[in-house]
Amino acid sequence: MNVDPRTWLEILGTEACWELLATTPVGRLAVVLDGRPEIYPVNYVTDGRTIVFRTEAGSKLAALDANPSVCFEADVVDVDRRSGWSVLVKGQARAERRPEAVRALNKLPLHFWSTGDKPNFVRVEPTEITGRRVHPSGEGA
Amino acid sequence: MNVDPRTWLEILGTEACWELLATTPVGRLAVVLDGRPEIYPVNYVTDGRTIVFRTEAGSKLAALDANPSVCFEADVVDVDRRSGWSVLVKGQARAERRPEAVRALNKLPLHFWSTGDKPNFVRVEPTEITGRRVHPSGEGA
Repeated sequence: MNVDPRTWLEILGTEACWELLATTPVGRLAVVLDGRPEIYPVNYVTDGRTIVFRTEAGSKLAALDANPSVCFEADVVDVDRRSGWSVLVKGQARAERRPEAVRALNKLPLHFWSTGDKPNFVRVEPTEITGRRVHPSGEGA
Repeated sequence: MNVDPRTWLEILGTEACWELLATTPVGRLAVVLDGRPEIYPVNYVTDGRTIVFRTEAGSKLAALDANPSVCFEADVVDVDRRSGWSVLVKGQARAERRPEAVRALNKLPLHFWSTGDKPNFVRVEPTEITGRRVHPSGEGA
């Protein structure tokens, strides 16, 4: 591992980023709406090398139609040990409306965070994925 | 409590939002850079009715100078119980350079996430704060 002994920070490779993304079901999506940033917590899954989440019709989808550039973040932080990881995905989001794809996505475990009706699937196609892990001081060097 | 029995979702009041923000040290800041959203995990504290974090000089600060509109999010999620809360703060961020304020901020516990040099303080003055809590199905109604 390549850990900076000053910050205990490890820069993660692409494979490690995808593996970590598959371990947690909740992330946050940032979009631009009227020139300002918005964040939405989302329940997501990785599907191949894409990220998929469900959404209600509404401002989230409207923002994506106007500006499909998104930034997605997931992290797991252990506050007591002052350690954790964070993965950032930049990419383009688009509504997934292909019937075959929607049938497949309906089988994925995408029902957490709130259980209201969220009939639309959104898929984020990454253009960049980066991640870092903060190690507890003195470990992992 | 006002909990929707379909989604187990409770809309939180302003006081509850600030109380929850004070319980966790890590959040995420979304900014707009070149028309695209960026997310940064940040270690933060609440300071009065503002949010303060430290940052290195670099893209985060540059983005804030160009467009001070930010969206800040913190959450705590219990995946196993399918419950949790999320608070969103929209507002304007500015570098805090007043010597008296910087002296006070230097006493706050803002050293987690990475321990590298982060000499700049940024303060988010909220224009809007909203929050929601997802209750485990069948509880809290």
